[in-house]
Amino acid sequence: MKRGRKKAVRLKAEERMAQICETTARIIGEKGYEKTSMREIARQLQVTAPSLYYHVKNKQHLLSLVMNYGAELIQRQVIDPLAQLSDPEEKLKLLIKNHVKLMVGQSREVFALIYEQDTLLGRYRPKIQASKRQYVDLIKGLLSELKESGRARDVDVTAATFALLGMINWIYKWFKPEGRLSGEELAEQLTDLFLYGYLRKAPTKRSST
Amino acid sequence: MKRGRKKAVRLKAEERMAQICETTARIIGEKGYEKTSMREIARQLQVTAPSLYYHVKNKQHLLSLVMNYGAELIQRQVIDPLAQLSDPEEKLKLLIKNHVKLMVGQSREVFALIYEQDTLLGRYRPKIQASKRQYVDLIKGLLSELKESGRARDVDVTAATFALLGMINWIYKWFKPEGRLSGEELAEQLTDLFLYGYLRKAPTKRSST
Repeated sequence: MKRGRKKAVRLKAEERMAQICETTARIIGEKGYEKTSMREIARQLQVTAPSLYYHVKNKQHLLSLVMNYGAELIQRQVIDPLAQLSDPEEKLKLLIKNHVKLMVGQSREVFALIYEQDTLLGRYRPKIQASKRQYVDLIKGLLSELKESGRARDVDVTAATFALLGMINWIYKWFKPEGRLSGEELAEQLTDLFLYGYLRKAPTKRSST
Repeated sequence: MKRGRKKAVRLKAEERMAQICETTARIIGEKGYEKTSMREIARQLQVTAPSLYYHVKNKQHLLSLVMNYGAELIQRQVIDPLAQLSDPEEKLKLLIKNHVKLMVGQSREVFALIYEQDTLLGRYRPKIQASKRQYVDLIKGLLSELKESGRARDVDVTAATFALLGMINWIYKWFKPEGRLSGEELAEQLTDLFLYGYLRKAPTKRSST
């Protein structure tokens, strides 16, 4: 009983944090970071400014929470699921699929913020930079593994890594969730485009993962 | 004589505008748009603030000049040279090569600004939006032509267009001109990656264009 209740409390806190981060990202996306006030964020969250300041030190701290929330989504929904697979090509497919899903989903404004903003400075910056670097290294690792086993074309791994990240991270600039392509179809298109470009042989057909 | 002199004057004005735009883009890149003052821009251009205001109405006007300068570089250095070619694959290769060259060259901060900023509002916005749309349509047109003639894989043209633009526009986020890869090598890598991904057959080997 007690354990169940603790879990419920934790879930509620997590949901609250998600709501704070997504609302903040949406407002900053609309108005720009400089023009967004803590008062406005509090208003849209339907809390008082003092109660927002109870949880958050200042706007930089809040921005850092949003970015770390985005990094955690990448960790839980893109990186963690790869552990169930061993083949680097399969891992890459699942990574692209799940990353694209995040970029078109309800938290997409969080990702727009992460990539758009160089406004996070000082003490909050290193943690999010480290998360980004870790993700880049993960992709580089998968591409290197494919290359070393002779499955890739003669393409530079760094260029290919950032080409893939560019394709995916650009999504928030143009993709309309209500448009003709679904997020799932987009993920398939980008997977094919990248894998046919990077691999020597046609990619193996989609597994059920 | 007179004609030669007029040309020289025009060239000088053009060079001056390039310098203003590149300096402005660099400062905004460092400080962010909101925190950049006209006074600071004037100082770095080694002119007085009033003499800057003689040419430029306000910061939004200046930002619009920078963006239109970027659009003009794309027009002159990427779009115009395509007229010498007829094959859509060759055009696409030349487009990628010249666009990448701009993204790694001395005006790269101008492009960072174009893609980073949603701060250009009101009356200055439609023109730059139209330039962007025109460029997107040009790429879509080349990809459609390749697809209709049966040379492309079964890839959605819109997804492929923005995948290519994402690859190229992302360059300013990671590429270091002093790094291991030259801009020319990067252009070759991205051309191969994209064309092997999009086309049914291996791309024809690089022409001398």
